[in-house]
Formats: sequence, structure tokens, C-alpha cells
Amino acid sequence: MDETRESAAAAAGAPIGTMEFAAVLSAHAARVEDELARLLPAEGGGAGEAELCAAMRYATLGGGKRLRAFLAMEVGRLCGVPEARAARAGAAVECLHAYSLVHDDMPCMDDDALRRGKPTVHVKWSEATAVLAGDGLQAMAFEILADPATHPSGDVRARLCLRLAQASGAAGMVGGQALDLGAEAAAVPLDAAGVKRLQLLKTGALIEVAAEMGAILGEVPEATVAHIRAYARALGEAFQIADDLLDVTGSEAETGKAVGKDAGAGKATFVDILGIEGARARAGELVREAAAELAFLGPQARHLESAARFTVERRS
Amino acid sequence: MDETRESAAAAAGAPIGTMEFAAVLSAHAARVEDELARLLPAEGGGAGEAELCAAMRYATLGGGKRLRAFLAMEVGRLCGVPEARAARAGAAVECLHAYSLVHDDMPCMDDDALRRGKPTVHVKWSEATAVLAGDGLQAMAFEILADPATHPSGDVRARLCLRLAQASGAAGMVGGQALDLGAEAAAVPLDAAGVKRLQLLKTGALIEVAAEMGAILGEVPEATVAHIRAYARALGEAFQIADDLLDVTGSEAETGKAVGKDAGAGKATFVDILGIEGARARAGELVREAAAELAFLGPQARHLESAARFTVERRS
Repeated sequence: MDETRESAAAAAGAPIGTMEFAAVLSAHAARVEDELARLLPAEGGGAGEAELCAAMRYATLGGGKRLRAFLAMEVGRLCGVPEARAARAGAAVECLHAYSLVHDDMPCMDDDALRRGKPTVHVKWSEATAVLAGDGLQAMAFEILADPATHPSGDVRARLCLRLAQASGAAGMVGGQALDLGAEAAAVPLDAAGVKRLQLLKTGALIEVAAEMGAILGEVPEATVAHIRAYARALGEAFQIADDLLDVTGSEAETGKAVGKDAGAGKATFVDILGIEGARARAGELVREAAAELAFLGPQARHLESAARFTVERRS
Repeated sequence: MDETRESAAAAAGAPIGTMEFAAVLSAHAARVEDELARLLPAEGGGAGEAELCAAMRYATLGGGKRLRAFLAMEVGRLCGVPEARAARAGAAVECLHAYSLVHDDMPCMDDDALRRGKPTVHVKWSEATAVLAGDGLQAMAFEILADPATHPSGDVRARLCLRLAQASGAAGMVGGQALDLGAEAAAVPLDAAGVKRLQLLKTGALIEVAAEMGAILGEVPEATVAHIRAYARALGEAFQIADDLLDVTGSEAETGKAVGKDAGAGKATFVDILGIEGARARAGELVREAAAELAFLGPQARHLESAARFTVERRS
């Protein structure tokens, strides 16, 4: 990252360009990658344990935009959180996200053989290893958050655990995945409200809690936490609309995964309901809504505003 | 439970008989069953969500000896913990245990069609529901522990989450399951140290942390926590030896699951290594070791002593 240009833009309070934002995003990604590499279990132990640890590292390291970690770390930075603590929260939410992908890719779920252009865990090892690696990554997310290194206050650590558990459990991400499978099995496409609720549970809840964790670590007033949450909720919906658009308009080479899959599976998406132009317009609206929630923070929130724009403009 | 006889035995400080202990165990089981029925998500929501919640309840309610919850609650009682708090910790550890059984029963793992005489979750619903119900139950365990209703101190709640995550993750239960699968695949039976380590990870760690949670809730001195942990470690090993003995000497009607399965799968067990008589002798020794760790507590620890004896004498 060009630190000088970065600081100049910061001083001017100007929204930053796509290239500059990409540099900020990859700096955060590199930081959380280091943290994950250090925290994940080393590849040792007996037969079976070695595969488990290798699969946990494989599923978590070296991939993805790290949007969730970025949100935890960038909100943390705005809330005065030391970087080492925010990076731990970022690592925890990435472990949780990685577990959900490993289980989601399994044959009994979405049955995906590729993830970020590489064989999925059950293809590279086995279904049993995929089940266990996902289970181990979920436990690890809570282990990281509950550790005193994440924050000296037990109240803060317990709250981080509580919010992550709520966002990822049956009333959050896991509930959303069940709803998704159920809607597919019922072969009755969801209506607009149904698609919105599905997205909010399946991907929105974890994006929201990622940003919220930065604010919880900063022990900021509840009103600030609420603005951060509303920002992340709008960003999460924009992110999902962009995903649905990419499934229709993107290429496999760009996205690193199979495209046109949702339509093939008969899944209702935002694009089905709003059309391509309608979905683009709605995404733009959500980016503006997200930015408006951050107005009270002034120019220092420009990275988060750029994140909202980026989620819509990305090509993968 | 006969309260009068109970109190008389307590006053005399005498170890209680098997029948009386069974009554104590089932009173604790009924208490944690109520707690679980209240905490588990109600069967509502859209298609897919309803199945998820039904499967989570099915996998967790109405079954098992609740040994882990008993340990959390009985240690809690000894450490002056209000029953409502100890019951929450008991419910959390039972959710964690139930998740591990649901995933363990899947075709890619142990491939069991029956559990406690009933169809397993993937048989009754689907493999996808089994993956998600297990995932949801794991999140729920942490959600229960991190909630302020479990203890007013955030430090206590965070410590409960940390210890449960450590005991259940890649360096605990999940690691033990991976080791088990790896040893089976390698077709080289484990030696005595290997079997002991496998048991300690796969079942011992969670039994140990169940007891420890009662002590953590009581905020007792570290030396007391260490005795409780050592007691539970001996009990956990005795429990596994008894399981291995039941697999050889028990009947399917008594145990409610397939027997002779370990030998068929070529798994090394304590019985293979020590022989039937040797395994019985070792179990007896462990029961005495467990009791010795509780000597400092005097007669009030007699339920926990009985629990150690019970794990060895049970027929299912």
C-alpha cells in the first residue's frame, strides 16, 4: 500500500478510489492471514489429526476477500481498538465463515467440487474430514474470542461469543441455510420478502456481526453500535445482490466458482425478483443507505463507505 | 426421589446405593431436560427451518443418561452454584454432546442408523439436516454459556466458553474423532498409550470440562478446580473402559445400539489391550482414583463418588 497517498487522501477526507480501496482491503487481508496462520493448529499429531489440521488450514488460509475480517478490523480502528485485538476478532469471524463454506460445499448440501478455483475439502480429503474440519473451525472461532488476548474485559469477550453464536446458529446463518434447502426442496420460489429474509439469515447476519464485533471491542455507546449494525446490514444486502448479479452476468474465470448455478437449481434470487436493472438500482440505493449510517463518523469512515461501494462493483 | 432417605444417607455420610444414585441421576436428567426444552428453538419458521429446529430438539431431548450435565450440576451444587445457573451449563454441554453424536452418526463417519433405539437424524430427515442440526447445536452451546443468565460475571462466562471450545475443538473431541478415523484407515491398531490418548481426546475432554464448568461457575480456588478435573479425568477413562466392555459383553437390547461394532471395525479398544478381566480391574482402579481426588470434600461428594462407580457398573 502507498502510505503517502493513503495519508493524503485521509487528510483530504475524500472518498478513496477503487484501486486505493483494493490496497486497503488487501493490507487488512494480509494482516488477518498472518493472524490465522499463527492461530490455526499446526499440522502435527497422529494419523487423522494431521489431515484434520491440514484441512482446517487449507479451508481458511490463502483465499477470499476477507470482507468480514475487514469489517471487524476497520470498525475496530474507527472505535480505537488496538490492531492486535481487532485482528483476532477478524480471524474468528473468518474461521466461522470458512467452516460454513466447508460444510456448505459437501455433497449433501450444495455439492461443490471447487472453491476459489481449488478442490473443496471433501474432494481433496474426504467427507468425514470436511465434517470434522468445519466442526473444529467453529470451535476455534469461539476459542479465539473467549481468550483473554482478545480483550481484557470478560464482559466484552462473553458478548463477542454471544453475538457470534446468535448470528451463526439456528436463528442466523444455519437457519438461513436450512431455509435455503427447504425452499429448494419445496420447489416454490420465495417471494421478495422471502428472498430478503433468506439473505439476511444466510449471509447478512455474519456480515453484520463482523462489523459489530469491532464496535463491541471498542466499548462504544449502544447508539454507535446500532449505526454500525445498520451500515453492515445494508452492505450485506448489497453484497448478496451483487453475488446474484455475478451469478447471471459474471464468468467462471472471474468468480472462481461455477456460475449460472442458482438459476439451474431453481433458487429464487434478487435478480429473479427485481430483474438485472432493478437489482443494480437496489444495490446502489443500499450503498447510499450504508454510507448515510456512517455520516456521524465524518471523513474517517471513508474506508467503510468504499467497502459498501466495492461490494457492488466487484467482479468476483 | 425419596428425600427423607436421601437426607438420612447424607447425614450419615455413607456412599449411596445404586438405586438411590439412579434416582439422583434421573432427577438431574429431568432438570436439564426441562432446561433444554425451554432453550432449544421452537419448531417454527419457514420450510427447512422447521425441520432444522425439529431435528435439533429430536437429537437433544428425551434421551441419554445426561452424565455430562449431571457432572456440571453436581459439581456446581458442591461449589455453591445456584441450580438455575448449573442447569444452563449442563444444558450447554448436552447440546455440544448431542451435536457430536449427530455428526458422528452420519454415513461418512460411523454410519449409524440407530441411536438410543431411534432412527438417527440423517435417517429420519436427511444428511443436510444432520450437518445443519449439529452445526446449530454447537452454536447453541456457546450461546447458552455466553448469555448473562448463566453467570453475572463476564469473566466466568468467557472462561466457560473458552474451556468448552478447547475441549471440543481440534485439540479435544474433534481431534479425537479425526484420530479415530485415521487409526481405522491406517489399519494399524493403536497401542495402549494410543488408545488412552484417543479416549482422552474423543470422550474424556468433554466429560472433564463438564465437571470443570460446575467449579468455574462456583469461582472456587484453582486447587479445587484441579481436583475436580482429575476426578473427572479418571471417571472419563473408566467410562470409556465400561463402554468397551459393553461392546463385548452387552446386548443390543440393553445398550440401545449395535454391539460388537468396534471389533468388527478393527478399532483398538481397552479390552483388546487389557483383556476383559484386565479392563475390569483397571476400571475399578480408576473409580478408586476418582474417589481419592474428592476426599478433601468429605461426605458431601458422595454423589460424585457414586457417579464414578455407576459409570463402571452400568448395563447400557
